[in-house]
Amino acid sequence: MEVVKDALNKAQVAFLSYKNFSGKKKATFLRAIAEEIEALGTELVTTAMRETNLPEARIINERGRTTGHCRMFADLVEEGSWVDARVDTAIPDRMPAPKPDIRKMLVPLGPVVVFGAANFPLAYSTAGGDTASALAAGCPVLVKAHPAHCDTSRLVAAAIEKAAIKTGMPQGVFQHLDAEGFEIGQALVKHPLTKAVGFTGSLAGGKALFDLANQRPEPIPVFAEMSSINPVILLPDTLARDAAKTAANLAASITLGVGQFCTNPGLIIAIENEALNSFIKTLASEIQKALPGTMLHQGIADNYSRRLTQTLVQKGVKTEGQAANGTHSQGTPLVASVSAEVFIQNPALSEEVFGPFSLIVRCKNIEELMKVVSRGHGQLTATLMGDEGEISKHKALINVLIEKAGRLIINGVPTGVEVCPSQMHGGPFPSTTDSRFSAVGIDAIKRFARPVAFQNFPESLLPDELKTDNPLGIWRLFNGEFRK
Amino acid sequence: MEVVKDALNKAQVAFLSYKNFSGKKKATFLRAIAEEIEALGTELVTTAMRETNLPEARIINERGRTTGHCRMFADLVEEGSWVDARVDTAIPDRMPAPKPDIRKMLVPLGPVVVFGAANFPLAYSTAGGDTASALAAGCPVLVKAHPAHCDTSRLVAAAIEKAAIKTGMPQGVFQHLDAEGFEIGQALVKHPLTKAVGFTGSLAGGKALFDLANQRPEPIPVFAEMSSINPVILLPDTLARDAAKTAANLAASITLGVGQFCTNPGLIIAIENEALNSFIKTLASEIQKALPGTMLHQGIADNYSRRLTQTLVQKGVKTEGQAANGTHSQGTPLVASVSAEVFIQNPALSEEVFGPFSLIVRCKNIEELMKVVSRGHGQLTATLMGDEGEISKHKALINVLIEKAGRLIINGVPTGVEVCPSQMHGGPFPSTTDSRFSAVGIDAIKRFARPVAFQNFPESLLPDELKTDNPLGIWRLFNGEFRK
Repeated sequence: MEVVKDALNKAQVAFLSYKNFSGKKKATFLRAIAEEIEALGTELVTTAMRETNLPEARIINERGRTTGHCRMFADLVEEGSWVDARVDTAIPDRMPAPKPDIRKMLVPLGPVVVFGAANFPLAYSTAGGDTASALAAGCPVLVKAHPAHCDTSRLVAAAIEKAAIKTGMPQGVFQHLDAEGFEIGQALVKHPLTKAVGFTGSLAGGKALFDLANQRPEPIPVFAEMSSINPVILLPDTLARDAAKTAANLAASITLGVGQFCTNPGLIIAIENEALNSFIKTLASEIQKALPGTMLHQGIADNYSRRLTQTLVQKGVKTEGQAANGTHSQGTPLVASVSAEVFIQNPALSEEVFGPFSLIVRCKNIEELMKVVSRGHGQLTATLMGDEGEISKHKALINVLIEKAGRLIINGVPTGVEVCPSQMHGGPFPSTTDSRFSAVGIDAIKRFARPVAFQNFPESLLPDELKTDNPLGIWRLFNGEFRK
Repeated sequence: MEVVKDALNKAQVAFLSYKNFSGKKKATFLRAIAEEIEALGTELVTTAMRETNLPEARIINERGRTTGHCRMFADLVEEGSWVDARVDTAIPDRMPAPKPDIRKMLVPLGPVVVFGAANFPLAYSTAGGDTASALAAGCPVLVKAHPAHCDTSRLVAAAIEKAAIKTGMPQGVFQHLDAEGFEIGQALVKHPLTKAVGFTGSLAGGKALFDLANQRPEPIPVFAEMSSINPVILLPDTLARDAAKTAANLAASITLGVGQFCTNPGLIIAIENEALNSFIKTLASEIQKALPGTMLHQGIADNYSRRLTQTLVQKGVKTEGQAANGTHSQGTPLVASVSAEVFIQNPALSEEVFGPFSLIVRCKNIEELMKVVSRGHGQLTATLMGDEGEISKHKALINVLIEKAGRLIINGVPTGVEVCPSQMHGGPFPSTTDSRFSAVGIDAIKRFARPVAFQNFPESLLPDELKTDNPLGIWRLFNGEFRK
């Protein structure tokens, strides 16, 4: 595919200079991107609203998050310690053999292909977390525009290109490809000059790219954030006290943004008793009061409706509460319940239903609840509702939950992903393709970098990060001691 | 396969307790492993010598390296900062939304399967770097014994098991499976409870495991260290001065350990001129004087002989120097040369010939040399022979070399892998399956750990690493500031 070949050749030329740009210089680029996105003003907001059916406040909030992470990565690379520098100086007279001088730091992988998310037209698309972290690492980025919000993507791409020119970045440091269809995406992933892939979307889509990347003559890493039903576990004693409040909080989380968040709580696990009945009653009534919302695009609405029907016809699944039906473009909030016994036997019930839906699993006792948790797939998040005393009686539960998720939450809701250094937005498969990395927060940069050791290099040939006198003033492990 | 199923079930039970052991406690285990290996005394040395044909000094040296990295990882986890802890405390009154309390640290992946290396019966086998780093991370280990040194492997396994009992480790924290054949290895990689794989060996073997792991319903990471020809580039002006010394150093590196190192210099790239002729003459004469050595096992000797013949019959390949032929179990040191033009056109010449062989590529000029380097595969190492002044005239060369290797060496030889924090033993495919990780040095632990975020956890439920008052005294990023 000629367009892909040209784009990768351009990206590679850009890479060979861009990768050597200082953190300071890359930071000016990232900050300029934030400024140019802000300069798009209301046009960006109205375009994104038109293409995604998301409300104005949400788009404005997402724009803030997008410019926020551009500036966060600018700060990170300007400060510079992210390269994990290690310096081990020579010991020429060591016996029996001299110790050589070796120093190590992270360097960028090369051109990165980014596939934007339908549900985050700004924060996880064209200038999203994948793009910002890859550019920060020193990798040129090729964005395949999401077909559901092409105009938004083009606007943001133009802003990035403007920022690149203004700050003297090499041509090809950022490229936007907006052809429809799968072919161009596949060709991008298969091209030998592509060195990594970032993806946010469905399990089928992410897994297909992951397989494609691993079948290349030279396999490359794919970080795909894909599928999560974010279990919420209700401990009985606490539920007995807080049933109504818990139900209200969860109803709000289930219906937030028409349930179109990767951290939407799609599974609620609890022990059968009076408190659970009362919780379900309140949750059902909250859901009944909720309004159906227009989904991101018709494909997502159709998919929600289809997946919901598939789930509700499964043996033993009972609808507990449902909002009034909307148009065919809208998602109807709904909660259902099923016994743990049936849930464990039917793997279809563990699959994500992307939208404002949650399934309550009724367990006979704590042993059965442990069984449900132990057999669960990998998740982005797992939430535990319980007070300190009650949770401390169930440490085995936390011990297992840690194996199942990237983020554990106590007495909160999984929706709402704070962007901060301690954030982990990732988790065991199928929530992502590699549980060792996060898509949110400063550590997202680690997906696109690799260590290189420099042995016996004269000072003049070392990168500044590794020079003995530490001209950048970064944190380093220097002869085994952490210091600036 | 019943034996694999039992082993993984045992490993998983062990995991659920072992993962929560403190760094101090894991350190006592790792140190006890070192002591028990030492306590094996001469039996281990003579057994390894008998099984691998390696000389006593080398086995003793390798034993030191093995106990050395057990103690290195003991120190690392006892100190504790390796978990990359990040603490972001809550800001309840932040507008427009409160900031939750989130804290993050690395936790172990789960049971790890390790395939030992033929060429490192101790340091990269049963208690090798993969085993030590996985145990340090908190992962139970299942070692598939290398069929070429089963007795050595059994001895070391017994030492590890003894250490596990002495230090109160859970049953199943380490298991040794010594059946022959591929089936058991494949079954280990395919079992759903296996969470990662470490491998050192051939490209074919490593790639097969990598593919198997990615085809699982739940793909898992495989770190395979596989194939590298470790190019050495001779800059012309420096060569004109140092031809004889350079030739002698390289001859020693090529023949070291009968060329059976993954960092063996298998490719020498230089510009045609008088100095190169003189270098080749000296190198050839050094190689002629070298002695053939008995290889690790008959399979490796046969493979060397076959791959050598395949290489020498390629069009344009000229034998420059060759030691006297030995027995059919020995590897004969040999150097050959080829023009860059032929080399570029024939991909077979870039494949590894595991043994005491190196191919010299004669380039017409620096442009052609750049072309050879630019088209090269990923490597563990790349070496540049040149003085500071001459190298500084060829920065574009270093710029490209960094993309090709995990470790760059100036005026040294690639053999000899120092174990220290700044070591990077890894590199772009096909040298390994993931260039973002190292198999040597403290950072090898990162292959077997993943971050988990804890949101809104009361102090009593947090791991010690994340408690506010930092009871372990480790380095953490605390509200954006690096401190102890």
